[in-house]
Amino acid sequence: MSTAALVLAAGRGERLGAGLPKALVSLAGVPLVVRAVEAIAAVPEIERVVPVVPPGELARFAALLSGVAGAHKLAPPVEGGRERQDSVRAGLASLADDTAWVAVHDAARALVRGADVSRVIAAARRHGAALLAVPLRDTMKRVRDGRVLETPPRAECWAAQTPQVFAARLLREALAKADAEGFLATDDAQLVERLGAPVAVVEGEVGNLKITTPEDLAAAEVLLRARGERAA
Amino acid sequence: MSTAALVLAAGRGERLGAGLPKALVSLAGVPLVVRAVEAIAAVPEIERVVPVVPPGELARFAALLSGVAGAHKLAPPVEGGRERQDSVRAGLASLADDTAWVAVHDAARALVRGADVSRVIAAARRHGAALLAVPLRDTMKRVRDGRVLETPPRAECWAAQTPQVFAARLLREALAKADAEGFLATDDAQLVERLGAPVAVVEGEVGNLKITTPEDLAAAEVLLRARGERAA
Repeated sequence: MSTAALVLAAGRGERLGAGLPKALVSLAGVPLVVRAVEAIAAVPEIERVVPVVPPGELARFAALLSGVAGAHKLAPPVEGGRERQDSVRAGLASLADDTAWVAVHDAARALVRGADVSRVIAAARRHGAALLAVPLRDTMKRVRDGRVLETPPRAECWAAQTPQVFAARLLREALAKADAEGFLATDDAQLVERLGAPVAVVEGEVGNLKITTPEDLAAAEVLLRARGERAA
Repeated sequence: MSTAALVLAAGRGERLGAGLPKALVSLAGVPLVVRAVEAIAAVPEIERVVPVVPPGELARFAALLSGVAGAHKLAPPVEGGRERQDSVRAGLASLADDTAWVAVHDAARALVRGADVSRVIAAARRHGAALLAVPLRDTMKRVRDGRVLETPPRAECWAAQTPQVFAARLLREALAKADAEGFLATDDAQLVERLGAPVAVVEGEVGNLKITTPEDLAAAEVLLRARGERAA
């Protein structure tokens, strides 16, 4: 009954404008993918970490990751694809058959905390599927054709984060259904929701942000400094 | 047929931790409320700008704002209240009877651009009500009792910003209805939506962020620097 994590690092990073895959962009001197892999590998419940990297980048990522903390849990990188589901599919295919639980994490959420990962794994083991999320700060509008369709109560509106953790069998089934139907989701839990299976929500931290723009990188640097100061 | 703007600056700013009203926190040396009032006063369509300030803070804000660019459009500050609707109500009550259009703006969105304000005013004049919003980057979950209820299509999920612009009569009617029913909204457009009136959505910019935390402040400084570099 082992637990594995896919760290999705196949994004191209155009919005960070660094001219290299997003996961290789440095945050305070350390590439995002290294931070993310080390954070995930440090979680006691996770036994195996599979980096899913851009096509053609296996060698570069393998070299970069060879020296990370927790390298004994690290599997060789796997080539991802253009769509998120392509990467998840490739990562799942690489896992041993006895993998019971799969955590899917974005390398761009490089500041995730181990305690939050443990909490979402525990919730998945109870409910079959669980994700980290934070309450939305802005009011959310559902918009169609340039008009407000609906304003859901803000208390019900949460921004999904990763990791999202699933019973491996459930995620495989959900992905196969989506593939068969040509459905592309913006997160992995959505695939499981489409099966009608329950997905638990675990409140995470705003600091587990997805680093996508130079402003995100600046905000992440402030968060890192604040953590360092608290630790000192 | 004049157009007025309420700049809501009554927030207490606990999350910025500066021990002073949020609107007085400095961004690159200039208080948020000064930046917001100057940005709004620079919009040609806006003839009158009413700062709505924390109770007991009229004198301090009046002194601070006396020297802003565009001061000829500035009305004396008005005391707001505990809830957003208290502040909007107070601001509306201060407006001249011939005010046809009202823009409501958060002082914490100090980086709003004039061109975006003009576009949302134009949309309101066509449709009766309009707001700035940006597409959500994260997947949004509707959550109830710790479970995912629904994942609306991400393309339909937008984060509301300000300014939100209304026919003055419509906003007054919407506020009166909400007050009568004890309904508290998280944004002003929601009050108008409850009347069944259409609200147009104008795509704004991610840079028009609501500055609420130290990380937001850091991100805002990066945005300001980037604007300065582009302008230079």
